[in-house]
Amino acid sequence: MTASNWIDELLVRLPDPDDGARAVVMARAAEVLRPSGAFARLDAVAGWLAAWHGSERPAVTNPAVVVFLGDHGVTAEGVSAYPAGVTRSMLDALRGGVATINVLAEEVGATLSVVDVGVDRPTGNIAVEPALDDERFAVCFEQGRSAVRALDADLLVVGEMGIGNTTCAAAVALCLFGSVAEDWTGLGTGIDEGTLRHKVAVVQRARDRVGDCGPIEALRQLGGAEMAAMAGAVLEARLRRLPVLLDGFVVTAAVAALEVARPGALDHCIAGHRSPEPGHQLLLEKLGREPLLDLGLRLGEGTGAVAAIPLARMAARAVVDVATFDEWGLSR
Amino acid sequence: MTASNWIDELLVRLPDPDDGARAVVMARAAEVLRPSGAFARLDAVAGWLAAWHGSERPAVTNPAVVVFLGDHGVTAEGVSAYPAGVTRSMLDALRGGVATINVLAEEVGATLSVVDVGVDRPTGNIAVEPALDDERFAVCFEQGRSAVRALDADLLVVGEMGIGNTTCAAAVALCLFGSVAEDWTGLGTGIDEGTLRHKVAVVQRARDRVGDCGPIEALRQLGGAEMAAMAGAVLEARLRRLPVLLDGFVVTAAVAALEVARPGALDHCIAGHRSPEPGHQLLLEKLGREPLLDLGLRLGEGTGAVAAIPLARMAARAVVDVATFDEWGLSR
Repeated sequence: MTASNWIDELLVRLPDPDDGARAVVMARAAEVLRPSGAFARLDAVAGWLAAWHGSERPAVTNPAVVVFLGDHGVTAEGVSAYPAGVTRSMLDALRGGVATINVLAEEVGATLSVVDVGVDRPTGNIAVEPALDDERFAVCFEQGRSAVRALDADLLVVGEMGIGNTTCAAAVALCLFGSVAEDWTGLGTGIDEGTLRHKVAVVQRARDRVGDCGPIEALRQLGGAEMAAMAGAVLEARLRRLPVLLDGFVVTAAVAALEVARPGALDHCIAGHRSPEPGHQLLLEKLGREPLLDLGLRLGEGTGAVAAIPLARMAARAVVDVATFDEWGLSR
Repeated sequence: MTASNWIDELLVRLPDPDDGARAVVMARAAEVLRPSGAFARLDAVAGWLAAWHGSERPAVTNPAVVVFLGDHGVTAEGVSAYPAGVTRSMLDALRGGVATINVLAEEVGATLSVVDVGVDRPTGNIAVEPALDDERFAVCFEQGRSAVRALDADLLVVGEMGIGNTTCAAAVALCLFGSVAEDWTGLGTGIDEGTLRHKVAVVQRARDRVGDCGPIEALRQLGGAEMAAMAGAVLEARLRRLPVLLDGFVVTAAVAALEVARPGALDHCIAGHRSPEPGHQLLLEKLGREPLLDLGLRLGEGTGAVAAIPLARMAARAVVDVATFDEWGLSR
């Protein structure tokens, strides 16, 4: 059975949100002590949490971050500002607790799991060959699912680190949504203009290599180990009704394959932060998402989404814990 | 001595930021384990905290929120969606701990002070008379300063509640920066289009009444008790080198008088959140500020700025607590 087939089978049995719980929370949001609609954007986040928690009193008390790391054969094409070995160094730093995401996760009270799905075992060079064969794709996807099954969480962020992976994300997005490579390709961790032109050509070559293919196959052919794992993690989150705050370009490209395969598959996800990568902006438009934050962060590791966790927490409490006009003995 | 005179005297002896501490933090930000510039926006916040804390290891551990409330005589003109008595009700709710800002302040670990500077003692109707006489203006301004002197804080948010105060804010901004009343006047807590047209006329009438006047006089004539208090609070914060996260339209209009009176007086302030009030957008342009958040919140009470406190906290830790390449034994 190919990867597409068994994932398609998972995608047909996705649980729906609890629209009753959402309606209760939205009704309460209209009654708390503030002008009608004054907190509309955050109230919607509270309603979304309610729908996926199946709770009329949603709360974010156990957020979890899972960062997946893998190496990419496409770095052989010279598309990155940093050498491939940086992925290994950052794996060590993440495990050592000294990277940015370690500090931010601790700051917001989130657990952090670090999952090596392919450091020092690079995927195929997508310009000339599939990133992953069927077997390894399945292993990576299942590693993502397992990482989420191991959590006791009420909000999930998935993050990534993998030198070369904005090239893969651009190729996946190009294959999923069309247009031309220029539209999906950006500066990544900071390449120069000449390298950008080369990166665009590599993205186009990779995409042209695979021809017509389905979204899951696009992820296998053009993605990477950590991208497959993140798609698995976010699908497992859906199966468990665990809401997800999406990070930037690479995360969103990976999980977009699920949405293309089955529209609505990402209904349990909201966008945490807008990356300056032009491909992320375009993905957000394709997916109809407006991020909570727009701070120009371009790190990965899940940092943009983690920065939005306090907003999700405040959104829930601003409905659940603020008194209504009735409770405070006031007429509207 | 008129209000303008003694405030002008305070404004000539403003302390400067510690640019050495800022430089140390920015240098460290360039060396921590992430691509150059990946966190530029938050790194600048860390540098700003360093400069005003005078510390090479800035941290936000004691944020404080002070909410000032007052009634406005201009409500007699029928410019608001809510009756003036709501200010009293919200004062009670704030003291009772059940309003939105109570919940958000608790969520982010900030202390909250609630200061009544004129509830049930409305200011003059600015369409026809000064909001405050010299004596009351001074009392309100000093109440703001006293509230800040009572704090042991490393980050300040000032917030407000006062039915009618977006009308006053529009009049102050119009007087400070010119243009026409339409540009500064918005829907406040949610008036209809007919009321908006009337509100615009009231704003223009108030502004025309005062003719040429200085910025502090504009605040006295056209502002309100809580606006005078917030200007005092933010000036006192500057005198104590306490950094401030600015909330929305009414707060920003009040403190803009300080900046017009002495350019640079708000260097210790950054904008926390962009209000959908058109006048706030224009004020931010005049002051050259880009807010950290843009969530469409339009409540006041300091809530938009409080929502940004976790970002300030993360910004500091993402420089101070993340390892540098050197510390982690890596070459750049």
